[in-house]
Amino acid sequence: MSDRLAIFAEGLFTRHTGKTAHGVVRYGTRDVVAVVDSTEAGRTAVEVEPFCLKPVPIVASVREAIDRGATTLLIGVAPTGGKLDPTWRPALLEAIEAGLSLEAGLHTQLSDDPELAAAASRHGVTLRDLRAAPPDLTVPKGLDSRPEGVRVVHSVGSDTVIGKKVVTLELDRAARERGLRSVYVPTGQTGVAIAGWGIAVDHVISDYVAGAAERLVLEGAERGDVLFVEGQGALFHPAYSGVTLGLLHGSAPDLLVLVHRPSSTAIRNYPDLPIPPLSELIAAYESITAPVRPARVVAIALNTGDLEEAEARATVAAAEDETGLVTDDVVRFGAERVLDAVLRALPLSAGRPRVGA
Amino acid sequence: MSDRLAIFAEGLFTRHTGKTAHGVVRYGTRDVVAVVDSTEAGRTAVEVEPFCLKPVPIVASVREAIDRGATTLLIGVAPTGGKLDPTWRPALLEAIEAGLSLEAGLHTQLSDDPELAAAASRHGVTLRDLRAAPPDLTVPKGLDSRPEGVRVVHSVGSDTVIGKKVVTLELDRAARERGLRSVYVPTGQTGVAIAGWGIAVDHVISDYVAGAAERLVLEGAERGDVLFVEGQGALFHPAYSGVTLGLLHGSAPDLLVLVHRPSSTAIRNYPDLPIPPLSELIAAYESITAPVRPARVVAIALNTGDLEEAEARATVAAAEDETGLVTDDVVRFGAERVLDAVLRALPLSAGRPRVGA
Repeated sequence: MSDRLAIFAEGLFTRHTGKTAHGVVRYGTRDVVAVVDSTEAGRTAVEVEPFCLKPVPIVASVREAIDRGATTLLIGVAPTGGKLDPTWRPALLEAIEAGLSLEAGLHTQLSDDPELAAAASRHGVTLRDLRAAPPDLTVPKGLDSRPEGVRVVHSVGSDTVIGKKVVTLELDRAARERGLRSVYVPTGQTGVAIAGWGIAVDHVISDYVAGAAERLVLEGAERGDVLFVEGQGALFHPAYSGVTLGLLHGSAPDLLVLVHRPSSTAIRNYPDLPIPPLSELIAAYESITAPVRPARVVAIALNTGDLEEAEARATVAAAEDETGLVTDDVVRFGAERVLDAVLRALPLSAGRPRVGA
Repeated sequence: MSDRLAIFAEGLFTRHTGKTAHGVVRYGTRDVVAVVDSTEAGRTAVEVEPFCLKPVPIVASVREAIDRGATTLLIGVAPTGGKLDPTWRPALLEAIEAGLSLEAGLHTQLSDDPELAAAASRHGVTLRDLRAAPPDLTVPKGLDSRPEGVRVVHSVGSDTVIGKKVVTLELDRAARERGLRSVYVPTGQTGVAIAGWGIAVDHVISDYVAGAAERLVLEGAERGDVLFVEGQGALFHPAYSGVTLGLLHGSAPDLLVLVHRPSSTAIRNYPDLPIPPLSELIAAYESITAPVRPARVVAIALNTGDLEEAEARATVAAAEDETGLVTDDVVRFGAERVLDAVLRALPLSAGRPRVGA
């Protein structure tokens, strides 16, 4: 019997904190039978959040999700700081008692919770922590460990929660549709839930972030030739910049795509910290890579989801004028132009990325 | 009975990997009765490594350290990657069996090792992991959580293992000698072993590095007004830059002191990565802080330990010419000039740092 997911997002499905749920509904490879959020029950995922694309029913309780055949409950919300919310506990226990496996991408490891661990053991179900780091991580081995011919494209951003993962998934999909052996490389808990492999680098001890990034590239290289490595955080984010830079230096990309949401003017949750202009962000990312492994920003992916179409197109054009780089909203207008810019700029001298078997 | 330390550094006391041992001998507040390194047995710490200052005897075995009254064995070596070396195991078990507590700053937690944990439990001794992170860390609260009047000076560097910790300790000592309520803020395992408090930020999960740095500043603010926060790694170090940047943004310093060893021309263990010139390093550190909390580099601390004195003085003068900043070797020539530059530049408008009680 294959895994059938219910996604727990109580009270949070419509919000940024529901981004794991949205990503898994839209991009996940497993069957999603229900979203649990009593505040939106009776509607479908795509009605509440058009980004989801799919009409997955939203139900009021874990019980109803079980009735629809769920075999695993995924905690599909990621609160700031990533802790287990105590109000979720009754629903999680109900799921375990009904025989569902539990899956979460929190910093709080499910298996470290005595009550959940005891219940899971009693009912013979699995607790799967998407953020659990491999036990044998260490510092990077260096570029010589990378197979020749592999190309790494890294999506960096101006802020958190602006769509770096989605841009990365869309570029990978477009590249695969062109017959390239392209791979989406997941670096966060949602990506791991979507793709079924990867490492949530923000849960790795900080000394090993770059080592984890390198390992992801090496594992990606076993799956294909053109790797689209999802970015995390932002270089000027006061809480998460360390994750961003460790991932950037550790994945040692050939080139960068800069993701930005034009309507965001300050760092999320830090209203006193303005987001620098695109040209300054590009210069900052390029100069922080330069002494380690130089990588140019070759295109800009804007998230214009909260703008009217005419304004979105004007904003894309303005960003192209400011930076001289190909710019587009890859979700709204398609990934082709940004992908063209990426493929034009990839260093092909040591062998073109192979076209798929 | 107060703690009496033996420092285990088998085969590694003379090397960079012995830096924990050197730091604890020179700066530690606990009594050190012996260093264990059979390859240097019969000499003293200061004879082998003048930096240590103290004539702590070096002995050939844990047994001899016990005979000298040791109550705790500190693993005083930090191999790259921070793992427990299997060749140490017999000596560690011998110490436990003789009733010594064990202390280490490895990424491998002593208490996670089944054999050591079982032995410790059997013999009623403590396993203390200096790198263990507080369980309740999270993301930073922001600058508003910092008491008014506290000043933060952060030592950043051009590379690892060049003396950032020592510079920080010497500046703190000089400031205390002037009557300032100054505090050394330890951010690594050696600093924790020396000062008896602190957090090894490189062992914190990467999402919480900045939060750990903020907590260290808040804890430091309970101990004094002028905080000298030890730096970790380097901004252009391919393995550790994430730790560096998380600590930098999270500690949100008022100003920076740049530490550099002039004889190092490439990143340690990465011969293909040249260390950028001082002026570029200064610009990089200042521009990476600017959008979060601007901090200027106000002085340079050079580690000239491997140069003749005339060459050391010429190198200091050349760095001053290149950068226009006060430069000195604070270990060799004293911390006064660099400290003067720091105190001149501290933003005093919101109240001078108070002079001690």
